[in-house]
Amino acid sequence: MRSVYVDDLQNHVGETVTVRGWLYSKRSSGKLLFLIVRDGAGLAQCVLFKGAVSPELFELADSLTQESSLKVTGEVKKEERAPGGYEISVTGLEVVQITKDYPITPKEHGTAFLMEHRHLWLRSSRQHSILRVRHEIIKACRDFFDSRGFTLVDTPIFTPAACEGTTTLFETQYFDQKAYLTQSGQLYNEATAAAFGKSYCFGPTFRAEKSKTRRHLMEFWMVEPEVCFAELEEVMQLAENLVVFVVQRVLENRQEDLKVIERDIAKLEQVRSPFPRLSYDEAVKTLRESGSGIEWGDDFGAADETMLSLMHDRPVMVHRYPTSVKAFYMQPDASRPEVALCVDVLAPEGYGEIIGGGQRVHEESLLRQRIAEHHLPEEAFRWYVDLRKYGATPHGGFGMGIERVVAWVCGIEHVRETIPFPRMLYKIYP
Amino acid sequence: MRSVYVDDLQNHVGETVTVRGWLYSKRSSGKLLFLIVRDGAGLAQCVLFKGAVSPELFELADSLTQESSLKVTGEVKKEERAPGGYEISVTGLEVVQITKDYPITPKEHGTAFLMEHRHLWLRSSRQHSILRVRHEIIKACRDFFDSRGFTLVDTPIFTPAACEGTTTLFETQYFDQKAYLTQSGQLYNEATAAAFGKSYCFGPTFRAEKSKTRRHLMEFWMVEPEVCFAELEEVMQLAENLVVFVVQRVLENRQEDLKVIERDIAKLEQVRSPFPRLSYDEAVKTLRESGSGIEWGDDFGAADETMLSLMHDRPVMVHRYPTSVKAFYMQPDASRPEVALCVDVLAPEGYGEIIGGGQRVHEESLLRQRIAEHHLPEEAFRWYVDLRKYGATPHGGFGMGIERVVAWVCGIEHVRETIPFPRMLYKIYP
Repeated sequence: MRSVYVDDLQNHVGETVTVRGWLYSKRSSGKLLFLIVRDGAGLAQCVLFKGAVSPELFELADSLTQESSLKVTGEVKKEERAPGGYEISVTGLEVVQITKDYPITPKEHGTAFLMEHRHLWLRSSRQHSILRVRHEIIKACRDFFDSRGFTLVDTPIFTPAACEGTTTLFETQYFDQKAYLTQSGQLYNEATAAAFGKSYCFGPTFRAEKSKTRRHLMEFWMVEPEVCFAELEEVMQLAENLVVFVVQRVLENRQEDLKVIERDIAKLEQVRSPFPRLSYDEAVKTLRESGSGIEWGDDFGAADETMLSLMHDRPVMVHRYPTSVKAFYMQPDASRPEVALCVDVLAPEGYGEIIGGGQRVHEESLLRQRIAEHHLPEEAFRWYVDLRKYGATPHGGFGMGIERVVAWVCGIEHVRETIPFPRMLYKIYP
Repeated sequence: MRSVYVDDLQNHVGETVTVRGWLYSKRSSGKLLFLIVRDGAGLAQCVLFKGAVSPELFELADSLTQESSLKVTGEVKKEERAPGGYEISVTGLEVVQITKDYPITPKEHGTAFLMEHRHLWLRSSRQHSILRVRHEIIKACRDFFDSRGFTLVDTPIFTPAACEGTTTLFETQYFDQKAYLTQSGQLYNEATAAAFGKSYCFGPTFRAEKSKTRRHLMEFWMVEPEVCFAELEEVMQLAENLVVFVVQRVLENRQEDLKVIERDIAKLEQVRSPFPRLSYDEAVKTLRESGSGIEWGDDFGAADETMLSLMHDRPVMVHRYPTSVKAFYMQPDASRPEVALCVDVLAPEGYGEIIGGGQRVHEESLLRQRIAEHHLPEEAFRWYVDLRKYGATPHGGFGMGIERVVAWVCGIEHVRETIPFPRMLYKIYP
């Protein structure tokens, strides 16, 4: 018997097929028994009429419990009332395992319980849909860069030094020396961009932040493009184009999943070019007028970001932050060196920062000075300084945090649901 | 002036454009000066006629050194003798930086020197081409799974326990506990496959092996599919289809790069279905006949793998190894429990193992027994055992090591050239 996946039933109407999966739910009305079977690709309504099948088969089907694994065989029929529009008239059933006491039932469970059972929670329709949206977002990012002449480079995870601040590093013994888990592939990307003109990396990054907020994970994925000869304006345009492209892709391909998550689609449809652009100066002024206690020179707190983010119906780009609150590699604005040629993109609806980037220092002596001021180990950055000695160019790029984008696009409260196995403070199980 | 990339020159014939890049090489014949400019997308021949441009411009162009960064402006002309088929008649030149004493010159350098300058070595044409092939291979893997109903899941890097043996773990302090860097996403994939039917992960994995061979890196990327209800035969077919697809894609899209690397294309064209399949028993017999000292029950050494690999013109699949030499999660063959339902795929031309996989134990009591026998921490594997309690199914998958595939497809000796910044024994710079 031909095994098919549920999303392919439409191509087998009138044929007898086998679906392999798990019992999602069951309902009966005396002579009729409906099995809803999930196989990961979709839900199939499988129906048994008491008179039409053997008593043994009916009884076997009736004995199935939630998440029992099975192979169900029958004829595919068009049935508009069934989820997906097709139904299987069951003529055969092979039970692989009867599941006893499946821990996650249709009743409400607390988050701690669900997180402890994350390996099973992934099977529920909402988590399933969120992770399919995640897949779509990742694929969209890759397609975006692949079709625009960027070369993918996988930057290293083990690094000899910090990039984004030394207080949040995970350390490991690397044979006879210490190594740190990467916080960003950017520095390496600057080398690959000089080789490929445009490059991007896409991998896990790590920050040992002792914070338990809805926006933080210890392990998160970032996509980071870097472009030689690009100045701030070009970096901002690239970021805007990427965000519009990604949201559009999800709207095109993941309507069903957005429905399951109960996402307000209208909000995503507003994500169109051009995004509002705001200098840090203007942002501070606006925040103060709205009651924030922020002073010029302060970095934004989460509350400030949320406030700015709520003021717009689409992502807002805040540029030219004070040099003092940004990383050592940020290029100062030539006309006003106290601000850096950088940009943060804040997602709407209060989601806050999803992208951070800008132009990098491309002049050797200034970079050396910055490395010294930040007490960074000169030896570990020797290769990075080399990039300013041999064919330096203005260049820039950004990093986009995937989990925050997934949280925003799905409209969910906490990033912990945006990755299969989130790594949070004190938590690495399962 | 419109900036264009070199691979787009064909669309600008007759127009005046600017190319931004670096001087790759230069040659002159008195009145004619040829600048070969690389911009990451390709090489552009830029020509200056002494009489046709100002003496200042000619002199400036003549003063350029290898890897100087520049913007060159001129009219695009069709010119069959130029690399890429187009030429720029230079009318303007902006020098961004004159590079002094670029360390990598056209003369021969030793590997140690080149590895120490990996951040610059990436700019040379051979390294450039290898990494473009790498990009193609990664994209091909993702396209393969994306178009076959697999859901991408990013499995965690921080894990509480070992998967492939405890002696090769990188350890880190994770707040109040120890965490280990993942050796494989497989165990987590078994959970996601039960949620999505078919899933794959694709990320960096880590093995702290104190070995300095041409096949080992401490940090390497793996693509790992996992399929519920799949038995060994289906796993083998999936692996074969993937390898054929990937090689085909490289042949279709990376001919130019394969030429730069001087790869013998004929060898890659032989990579077609079906792949020869050999049981471990047969493999041992063949090896002994060929002079190997291997005994039944031994794992293959590198020399054995090379020998088997050299006997075939395409990848060979060796299945059913002794259970005792394989990981704890391997499903035994029901008819012969001393062998496991597993498969290794060995690339031809002596490249050895590129894929390892098989069916996983799906029965709870056997899995518990294996965990105990292997002295694995029961608590850390609780969730993994759960997968055998709640809707267990036969299932399987495999892992394909990207760097080994890149080495084979490119026909290069050592995996260190297959990733931008290789992490080898004692070496994390640059």
